[in-house]
Amino acid sequence: MSKVLVVGSAALDSIKTPKANKPKLLGGAACYASVAASFYTSTSIVAVIGDDFPRKYVDLLKKHKIDLTDFRQAKGKTFYWSGEYEENMNNRKTLCLEMGVFDDFKPELSPKNRTTPFVMLGNITPELQMHVLEQMEKPLFVLADTMDCHIKRDPAGLKKLLKKIDCLSLNDSEAKLLTGENNLLAAATKLHKMGPKMVIIKKGEYGAMLSSGDDLFLAPAFPLAKPLDPTGAGDTFAGALIGYIASNASTRAEVDRAIRKAMLNASAVAAFCCEGFGLQKITSISKKEIRSRVTELEKMIRV
Amino acid sequence: MSKVLVVGSAALDSIKTPKANKPKLLGGAACYASVAASFYTSTSIVAVIGDDFPRKYVDLLKKHKIDLTDFRQAKGKTFYWSGEYEENMNNRKTLCLEMGVFDDFKPELSPKNRTTPFVMLGNITPELQMHVLEQMEKPLFVLADTMDCHIKRDPAGLKKLLKKIDCLSLNDSEAKLLTGENNLLAAATKLHKMGPKMVIIKKGEYGAMLSSGDDLFLAPAFPLAKPLDPTGAGDTFAGALIGYIASNASTRAEVDRAIRKAMLNASAVAAFCCEGFGLQKITSISKKEIRSRVTELEKMIRV
Repeated sequence: MSKVLVVGSAALDSIKTPKANKPKLLGGAACYASVAASFYTSTSIVAVIGDDFPRKYVDLLKKHKIDLTDFRQAKGKTFYWSGEYEENMNNRKTLCLEMGVFDDFKPELSPKNRTTPFVMLGNITPELQMHVLEQMEKPLFVLADTMDCHIKRDPAGLKKLLKKIDCLSLNDSEAKLLTGENNLLAAATKLHKMGPKMVIIKKGEYGAMLSSGDDLFLAPAFPLAKPLDPTGAGDTFAGALIGYIASNASTRAEVDRAIRKAMLNASAVAAFCCEGFGLQKITSISKKEIRSRVTELEKMIRV
Repeated sequence: MSKVLVVGSAALDSIKTPKANKPKLLGGAACYASVAASFYTSTSIVAVIGDDFPRKYVDLLKKHKIDLTDFRQAKGKTFYWSGEYEENMNNRKTLCLEMGVFDDFKPELSPKNRTTPFVMLGNITPELQMHVLEQMEKPLFVLADTMDCHIKRDPAGLKKLLKKIDCLSLNDSEAKLLTGENNLLAAATKLHKMGPKMVIIKKGEYGAMLSSGDDLFLAPAFPLAKPLDPTGAGDTFAGALIGYIASNASTRAEVDRAIRKAMLNASAVAAFCCEGFGLQKITSISKKEIRSRVTELEKMIRV
């Protein structure tokens, strides 16, 4: 049972879908990922919030026993995002983005967090991801997640980071953007050459592909009857993945042995994420419900 | 080891992709499906060709030991389709469609074919599918495949057919079209209510979902580095599926036990189909290559 450190954004998200309008929900990559990881192991969050961040959201993270030593409050407004989804949930547009206190975010980790063996560099600029990584003392396993805007704005910074990490997770469209390859196998091959030994390409409702060089694992998405909001599902996926691995591995060989089951856990928790707005569903499920969903998923792929 | 009967179109297809232009290839649902089924068991094809149908294509079917008793030649032109694919292979447009001898196709089965236990009603009008089914004597397992144009033109005929079959296979977009449900689980539930106990929703490069009521099986697509032409992949999928089942089942209970492995075989052969233009690849592979691909696919989903 090893610890996890998650760095990323903490945000207030306003989410519109054809059927609902949810203002200022708890959001941000670090919040999704740390809650997901917290089902499996002790998790520290590294993020910044403004003075408008509701107390109840801090309490929610506390309820999940997330270590808040490096969860800092600054003067100003919390990072704010609002977006709108189309009927099919695959397309969304950003309506508004305000960086707020995130603009000056440059976290200095507390000493005790620097020795955390499992590190998730959530979706923030590659520069910030690198800044955090440089403070870590010999982490066992580093997972980075990224997003189209960082690929477009700082490809050089991202490529520098890729040399330092063990696992990259990103969407299929982002993998194509970063590599210029339309084919996912070709994209994975190129991504491996950029550094990470493990590459996870997320395909939304179609599951995720793990490439470890010659070895592929195809994790299905858990089929949902009523998806409500896919916001944060990718962050949740990555958080549950590293949480599961950390709770089952303390050597690199053990990471390799845990990774497939970790992918199914990640799929299961990400599916729960889509069943509520923002973090609403994943902050109200139990470990038992996750286990049961993983068992169901295993049955759906057993030949 | 039971026999399979496949009814559908035999065609000449001209296929354009951004990189190639292949005129008058062997095509048609019945040809794809019967070749795919022939890797597993004795297969009879029911289709019509015109007097322009090249001898070499008949020889190709013969090479696969496909029974041609009900493969009839009529005066006139063979069913002709030409289509063009976009770069990503997901979108295609029909450039030309000439029914030819297919316009008067109303097959009367030879007596020996009427007792075939496994029947695949390939992609033709629901009326023709029903016409063939009515000639069958107590088939053990009937699989029907359909397509958007039949759903649009004859929904009533299709719904009548659905009451008489065991398994329906169709694309995700077609499942949505036929049921009016955007969600695939909801669509499957509605399709079950229309008749078939098994529903297979094909998702192209994202695999296929088998619903048997409460039971789901998620079959991945075999990841391809260089897909060339997806034409006929769905017909190939269905043909390999019923071929595998027929070679492993002679009771309904045995069908249920074989279906998951059948889905993986179907995925494997359909992937080969996409690696060549028309039937070029699936008429040049060996049973051993299929087995090896199924083994690879099993490894990719083993937890």
